[in-house]
Amino acid sequence: MTEEPAGGDLSRLRQLNAVAVLRELRGDQPLTLTELSKRTGLSRASTEDVARDLLGRGWLTEVAPASGSVGRPARRYRFNAGAGRLLGVDVGGHKVLALVTDLDGEVISQTRLEIDPEAGRRARLAALDRCVSKALTKASARGWAGTSARSGDGQIWATGVATTGLVDGTGKVMLSDSLPEWSGVDLAAHVRRLVPGPVRVENDCKLAALAETWRGVARYASDVVFLLAGLRTGAGLIIDGKLHRGFANWSGEIGALPAAGWQQAPQHLHRWLDQTPHPEGFERVFVAARAGDEGALAAVHDYVRDLAVGASALVLTLDPQLVVIGGGFSRSADVMVEPLRRELDRWCLRTPEIRVSAFADEGVALGAVRLALDEVESTITTGLRP
Amino acid sequence: MTEEPAGGDLSRLRQLNAVAVLRELRGDQPLTLTELSKRTGLSRASTEDVARDLLGRGWLTEVAPASGSVGRPARRYRFNAGAGRLLGVDVGGHKVLALVTDLDGEVISQTRLEIDPEAGRRARLAALDRCVSKALTKASARGWAGTSARSGDGQIWATGVATTGLVDGTGKVMLSDSLPEWSGVDLAAHVRRLVPGPVRVENDCKLAALAETWRGVARYASDVVFLLAGLRTGAGLIIDGKLHRGFANWSGEIGALPAAGWQQAPQHLHRWLDQTPHPEGFERVFVAARAGDEGALAAVHDYVRDLAVGASALVLTLDPQLVVIGGGFSRSADVMVEPLRRELDRWCLRTPEIRVSAFADEGVALGAVRLALDEVESTITTGLRP
Repeated sequence: MTEEPAGGDLSRLRQLNAVAVLRELRGDQPLTLTELSKRTGLSRASTEDVARDLLGRGWLTEVAPASGSVGRPARRYRFNAGAGRLLGVDVGGHKVLALVTDLDGEVISQTRLEIDPEAGRRARLAALDRCVSKALTKASARGWAGTSARSGDGQIWATGVATTGLVDGTGKVMLSDSLPEWSGVDLAAHVRRLVPGPVRVENDCKLAALAETWRGVARYASDVVFLLAGLRTGAGLIIDGKLHRGFANWSGEIGALPAAGWQQAPQHLHRWLDQTPHPEGFERVFVAARAGDEGALAAVHDYVRDLAVGASALVLTLDPQLVVIGGGFSRSADVMVEPLRRELDRWCLRTPEIRVSAFADEGVALGAVRLALDEVESTITTGLRP
Repeated sequence: MTEEPAGGDLSRLRQLNAVAVLRELRGDQPLTLTELSKRTGLSRASTEDVARDLLGRGWLTEVAPASGSVGRPARRYRFNAGAGRLLGVDVGGHKVLALVTDLDGEVISQTRLEIDPEAGRRARLAALDRCVSKALTKASARGWAGTSARSGDGQIWATGVATTGLVDGTGKVMLSDSLPEWSGVDLAAHVRRLVPGPVRVENDCKLAALAETWRGVARYASDVVFLLAGLRTGAGLIIDGKLHRGFANWSGEIGALPAAGWQQAPQHLHRWLDQTPHPEGFERVFVAARAGDEGALAAVHDYVRDLAVGASALVLTLDPQLVVIGGGFSRSADVMVEPLRRELDRWCLRTPEIRVSAFADEGVALGAVRLALDEVESTITTGLRP
């Protein structure tokens, strides 16, 4: 990295130097100026200059010097994850869930609003507005431990939004067959009116898969089939450590194929319940199955049998290291995993390890936070925020 | 790259320098010593030293100086693709096909032996031996244009072998349900007794997919579903520009799922033929369909309908940019592509572009050559051959 401006744009150069310093400080360890200078290749003077600037902006914090050092201990710096906040929102069928986190993705506040699954576009967007507004109020009322208050702290730097259905590259819902009047909603544009900073929108199953590789049970796996098992069935794919989106962002949609069995799968549970779908209603089937009710057990088995056909198609296609079960039904994984394993054994050449998500129905919102964090990190890597 | 040996191993250092020079010369352009020195970061003296050594080994050739240069024109060098040869072998149900190529993968000779599909392990391995032996004799009888003969020229540097069935990481056939007595064959060990150099073995569908991204109709696509349509149906996947192998190298096996329709697909053609499977037999159905025979057309349509279910499962899962049809039936793609497109339109959310392989049943062997070339290139990248 050039340090001497050749009669050029000094501020741009300082910006590039700042990016280099920030990149090094995104790791876990605080670093001294000497270490930073060595890692970035900047001179000691330039490093000090940049550090002073970033401290002034609140992006760095000074941490206590390492104990036991000889002579005057050197100051150490680390990235200030409290400098800004991230917002992750899951707009689902029955709920809107918003998470506000720091720049490391640590959750500061969580806000949940139940909504009627039959709600139309306007009512759903209004619920989204209320939920985001509540989340922001709650988060700004809450301080961070270990971070000095400072003007500008707590501003949302980036937002990730998860929704069911197919989402295009601009954040518009192309097609949703489960939410009424939802196809065509320009969700990114709508949320941009609510919060500052960039907004990215992505399909909920993809984001739940992302959450599992980020902080969940798939952290060290490079190829993962994630199954969202709930009122709807969906899939998200991690290939070679990365979220696989596909050419038009429409990957993981095996459920659209009738032969995959996912369209009729939840009907077996409905039949036992003999009522309209509702999360607690479904919970009842699993509770009854767990208690040994034969009808409920049969319903769960029929559900799993159909779920397993599509799941086997994914497994046979990709030969993943891991299958992760998430979504609302994953709370009842104890009655689902063994029958699922048996069905996969029946169809697959090699049944991968099956793990159950620890996030239940919060994984989608956490994946939306990860999407927001991706946005911030790409900004830090390519240049500072204006 | 360090140039001065600090009292250390001179030959290892020269080897590293040679690797750096070779890496630069794998491109299309011949380079002068000045250009090579600049690109590798080696001193002019070291570059000359390495070039002299590599010329002596026959790995470089000198090409005519660029015309129109002022003063004494500088010598230019390029990689000598004729320094060694690659062998690619396809051990199929009805044939063994061997290609001998130069180090750029240009085919020097091609040898094909028909075999009885019912042949057992011993007979098939004997056919493989005969085919490889013929191919080597043929290739060594044939010179290269533009390459001076030199001792050691023409030796096989690496071999790729393609076979149906599941192959493990050591080159052993784990499972083959189409070739008699084929499961358990240690194909890599067998071929190592026939040729010098490293031998790698891989599943035929995967290698045919690789050939398409290397030299075929999928050259500029990053996500590709390759369908091998022939007496058997199989798939190979290119994801993010790379062959996707899967955790245990068992990807693309959607055909094992009865719901995918591939197990019964060729039976519709059999029914029309009312005879045992044979490539020419199948060809007859397509010829009749092309001529408008209604029974043949119905058989082809039924075949395509079943093929499309599994193909749709792959497309819905991955959302690829491209579907490529290869294998023996791809010669009859003119009667297959339109019905296939209609069936994909029926099940898929987005039907990708469909292209037909130009390799017909030679793509698998070409992919085996690419596998051998991968081996040579990884050797050049990590260190020279002994």
